[in-house]
Amino acid sequence: MTYCVGLKIDRGLMFLSATRTNAGFDSIASFKKMHVWERPGDRVIVLLTAGNLATTQAVVSLLDERSKAAAERAPSILETPSMFQTARLVGETVKEVIALTAPVGQRADAFSATFILGGQIKGGEPRLFLIYPEGNFVEAGADTPFFQIGETKYGKPILVRAYDRKLSFAETAKLLLVSFDSTVKSNLSVGLPLDMLYVEKDALKVTYQRRFTGDDPYYRTVASGWSDALKNAFRELPAFPDQL
Amino acid sequence: MTYCVGLKIDRGLMFLSATRTNAGFDSIASFKKMHVWERPGDRVIVLLTAGNLATTQAVVSLLDERSKAAAERAPSILETPSMFQTARLVGETVKEVIALTAPVGQRADAFSATFILGGQIKGGEPRLFLIYPEGNFVEAGADTPFFQIGETKYGKPILVRAYDRKLSFAETAKLLLVSFDSTVKSNLSVGLPLDMLYVEKDALKVTYQRRFTGDDPYYRTVASGWSDALKNAFRELPAFPDQL
Repeated sequence: MTYCVGLKIDRGLMFLSATRTNAGFDSIASFKKMHVWERPGDRVIVLLTAGNLATTQAVVSLLDERSKAAAERAPSILETPSMFQTARLVGETVKEVIALTAPVGQRADAFSATFILGGQIKGGEPRLFLIYPEGNFVEAGADTPFFQIGETKYGKPILVRAYDRKLSFAETAKLLLVSFDSTVKSNLSVGLPLDMLYVEKDALKVTYQRRFTGDDPYYRTVASGWSDALKNAFRELPAFPDQL
Repeated sequence: MTYCVGLKIDRGLMFLSATRTNAGFDSIASFKKMHVWERPGDRVIVLLTAGNLATTQAVVSLLDERSKAAAERAPSILETPSMFQTARLVGETVKEVIALTAPVGQRADAFSATFILGGQIKGGEPRLFLIYPEGNFVEAGADTPFFQIGETKYGKPILVRAYDRKLSFAETAKLLLVSFDSTVKSNLSVGLPLDMLYVEKDALKVTYQRRFTGDDPYYRTVASGWSDALKNAFRELPAFPDQL
């Protein structure tokens, strides 16, 4: 398991992904779950991945190869006319990979993977999609402004409560780090380092990118500060009315 | 799904359980997930249930019937010599019910259920167990002072951070309500009313019992107060160092 979030605010799109991958407790490794295709001034496309690592790597490799061999029949992620068509392309590639991997007639559950796709292409708005293992997808709107994939439950309560579309870049970064800290503290399968990426609206390029390791001073401040803040918040809630 | 917590503090045992049961989104009902056997001065035994409702009800009914028909061969939950033997009795009953339900040779996953068992029997300490669908069980100790069953992830971060074995009854009640509020807000399959029960150490009876409905004033205070407190705590964390 891993944990990835893609989040839409008025000012742009922000992404945060963990890197831990595990196949059992004795087989743990770090792999980047965040992939970027960028053609500054024309488009910036970000893909976050969770699920079977062989599947997600094959999907990313195919998208990558095809973006470099422009003459090929398969469309390139650097040429799609819109984010919607980009989501379709990723969905088709997911289906292709899973169909090739799963034995004939067998269910493909073991090879399944889920993706968050976000970005902006010149002439369009910033858009954010959640792509299912079946290749179909849904788009984030005003009512569902963020998507989570992987180990999503621990980090959801704070996202639900503190998200606001008017958040600044810095506030969104803080919110995502808090959500990840809650997850890292509760689940061994999610671990640092974390990859953060921000795409400002209409910038058509990566605006900000940073990796957080366990000894990053701000991450450590958030991790310990949030524990203390939660304990204080808990203490300050009105006392239970019945006493024994 | 449902959500139940059993928690051990120095002063006793506290239990909180939700009541919502669902078989699909259009089949939702309320069932009590908390069951008590009490013989004041001799023992108090509490069982929380999550999983297949037919299985959990059959287990509780069998335990109940056998406690009333004292002459029967099967042991009674009101006669077991220790909490450890009580946990074995519940585990055997779970195995018996699942074996009777599951078709021969088939896996019993669909009928599985998990239980939290806690209580105290005269001459022993208060003890808390987690009983698996396979009938085996683990006991809470100093390192794992609480068990959660059902939809456990949303409510775990606050339990992990704010639990302390020296908590008072009132503080523990508040902590459990906060943990449940986070779960109820994030997951449709967990819903009010909630059943709370407290067993003071060496009381050998139910010390406190209360049901919280959605319009309970204290529950509403916690629900709205905790949202505000989280937002404030989040605001007060140091700002993200990089500004755009």
